[in-house]
Amino acid sequence: MSNDWRAMWAELGIDLEKHDQFLAALPELYEKTFINQFNRPQAMQYFDFVISEVHGLRVKELVDHKLKGGKVVASFCVFVPEELILAVDAVSIGLCAGAQFPVATGEKVLPRSICPLIKASIGFKLDSICPYFQVADFVIGETTCDGKKKAWEILNDFIPTYVMELPQRKEKEDYDLWEAEVNRLMQKLETETGKAVDFESLSQAVAKVNNRRKVLRRLYDLRKADPVPISGKDALLITQLAFFDDPERFSAKVSELCDELEERVKEGMGVVPQGTPRILITGSPMPIPNWKIHDIIESCGGVVVCEETCTGTRYFEQLTEEGQTISEQLKQIAMRAMKINCACFTPNNERINDILRLVEEYKIDGVIYYNLQFCHPYSIEYYKIERALQAAEIPVLKIESDYSEEDLPILQNRIQAFLEMVGQ
Amino acid sequence: MSNDWRAMWAELGIDLEKHDQFLAALPELYEKTFINQFNRPQAMQYFDFVISEVHGLRVKELVDHKLKGGKVVASFCVFVPEELILAVDAVSIGLCAGAQFPVATGEKVLPRSICPLIKASIGFKLDSICPYFQVADFVIGETTCDGKKKAWEILNDFIPTYVMELPQRKEKEDYDLWEAEVNRLMQKLETETGKAVDFESLSQAVAKVNNRRKVLRRLYDLRKADPVPISGKDALLITQLAFFDDPERFSAKVSELCDELEERVKEGMGVVPQGTPRILITGSPMPIPNWKIHDIIESCGGVVVCEETCTGTRYFEQLTEEGQTISEQLKQIAMRAMKINCACFTPNNERINDILRLVEEYKIDGVIYYNLQFCHPYSIEYYKIERALQAAEIPVLKIESDYSEEDLPILQNRIQAFLEMVGQ
Repeated sequence: MSNDWRAMWAELGIDLEKHDQFLAALPELYEKTFINQFNRPQAMQYFDFVISEVHGLRVKELVDHKLKGGKVVASFCVFVPEELILAVDAVSIGLCAGAQFPVATGEKVLPRSICPLIKASIGFKLDSICPYFQVADFVIGETTCDGKKKAWEILNDFIPTYVMELPQRKEKEDYDLWEAEVNRLMQKLETETGKAVDFESLSQAVAKVNNRRKVLRRLYDLRKADPVPISGKDALLITQLAFFDDPERFSAKVSELCDELEERVKEGMGVVPQGTPRILITGSPMPIPNWKIHDIIESCGGVVVCEETCTGTRYFEQLTEEGQTISEQLKQIAMRAMKINCACFTPNNERINDILRLVEEYKIDGVIYYNLQFCHPYSIEYYKIERALQAAEIPVLKIESDYSEEDLPILQNRIQAFLEMVGQ
Repeated sequence: MSNDWRAMWAELGIDLEKHDQFLAALPELYEKTFINQFNRPQAMQYFDFVISEVHGLRVKELVDHKLKGGKVVASFCVFVPEELILAVDAVSIGLCAGAQFPVATGEKVLPRSICPLIKASIGFKLDSICPYFQVADFVIGETTCDGKKKAWEILNDFIPTYVMELPQRKEKEDYDLWEAEVNRLMQKLETETGKAVDFESLSQAVAKVNNRRKVLRRLYDLRKADPVPISGKDALLITQLAFFDDPERFSAKVSELCDELEERVKEGMGVVPQGTPRILITGSPMPIPNWKIHDIIESCGGVVVCEETCTGTRYFEQLTEEGQTISEQLKQIAMRAMKINCACFTPNNERINDILRLVEEYKIDGVIYYNLQFCHPYSIEYYKIERALQAAEIPVLKIESDYSEEDLPILQNRIQAFLEMVGQ
């Protein structure tokens, strides 16, 4: 990244010294994790570039958008309906939440015993080192878990934080509540931007977001091939970047990548030999730069071919159906989210079906259940998932981890042993 | 407790050996904690008796009730509307959830990193040592926190568990959702018992439960006196037993106690000298036999005069308004619960007002914020409460603890130091 951005960062109120410290370790981590992978697709170059400019050029685009009177709205969760944000010509971005660096700062206002994603995100804001937090006009939070629900109250002291109430079951009243929340958000966005949502702007936004979902579906479909034409790390990186990059450019670039992968599949070319243990990751999300588990798996002779996570299939599997009026379209936007099988719902047995289906579709040899430390919903839901996988005779390993490197040796041992077991 | 109950326990499917192990330590703990307190009110004898028969005579009453065709419904939470359970002539009881003994068993199906209350309650069922779990026809759970919400899915494998969805905010849609939930529960109870709720049965039930709330209010009002006429331990015990005892008998006995305490207040007689540091406990609930923090405080020269918890004011402060029709009464039952300021709501600023008000009313010298280990909602909400108390110049100490005795020395040190500080 060029040094030209320092003036922009300073203007955004970024703590330049801390920001330097934070960024210092990332190029080496990225190089080590991504660059020297075997037979890496050519089209990954674009995503390498995006990462290299994730605090630079992309932020500049957002600053320019704001100079033209546009708004930037930040969120954390696949339940926040991006379509509405785009429909008022605002930019929707994800928030920094995947690094260990700001966790200690997060722990100044939050208990230690909550998940690193929440501690990191609040820490990023308090440390003033996430340009997305700095450029965002406001944050849209949600009530998906106790940790986030209550952390928004604190975050709101530092940046305006609007909260959507996601219901906890999937009964009629819950659909009604969520539809009302989607409508409430539309009003909020109209007020904030001074732009009225009309049918055309909404339809275009739906098409744009659906299109990104479709290219990600295509990417994941290509991962079903054996040998798999792309590493799990690269695929994860792409899903992570989907939260940050311009959706149209991103979709075009993922399409190009898919064209290349399609050729590979035709030729039977992969990034690992056939017979490499194929792993499904399921559980908590993995925001940038959390590549820890994928990296261990792929360094220990396995390959991740699918993620049943919010930085995986839960993000893009469901499309928004097209509606014929604004209110019908809003209803469809609400309905789409309610099809996501997140552990925040009770019961959530559909997730079992999802996992068993993905195991089948992706020819999975073993499942790694990834739980962010202290993430209660996924951690407790493991009980049911484990039983279902055992009944289907699918090996499963539960990993609970934070963003630190302290548990790397233990994780490497456990994952190595698991891969040897499933590879037999 | 007499040995006559062994046959009953065996019939209830209790694991007699484990149950003996569990009960073995309790008489000594109770004796040490309660019996030798200075100037203890005479009327506490009844509650000593209730405790001594909590696995015996009271369970026998429930068994007899079932023999007459009645139902027993168990719950964990102040949001479950007891009025409805009583309106179908069922007995409403709390569930065992306050002991360390079954925690290890709970951890076989639940992660270690969730709160001891949930681990204990599931452990009690799996160990078959809680007679209330054994005698209950079904459990009513709720979605107040991630831990409970997801644990009910597992508990349902061992005892039918019906879940009420408590909303997470207090907006119009949330009131509607909760009112629908109250109506849904009424239908469930009618189906289970074969009894239709009519206006009279509902009104009587409302009066009965309100009456218990009123006597508890009276008891707490008497704790406002200085010197305080009853120890915090005894008052906590009474609130804990409110979940188990017959409501009418219980209310009569608390009234008798209050008469005695009223005399004491007139005479200026207390259980501790005037000037003893007066402590408000706020935070997570303390089910029987969790007397740990009260015991430390009162052994270290302080006295607990109020609990802003679900085994305290949150349980009884709000009365159900009387309605003129069944549907209006159901609405009022729903409205009452929504006035409870639990950390499960966002925002929950009303709890700050409650605490500041109680500090005033009870002439509090210091607040101890009690957090069950890994209880996220209360733990995160501490940030706001701490700031409000600091602004009001009220000393506050946060204690995070489980049910084990491992942290006793540390807690004693911390609480001793805190009491010395506030006593100056």
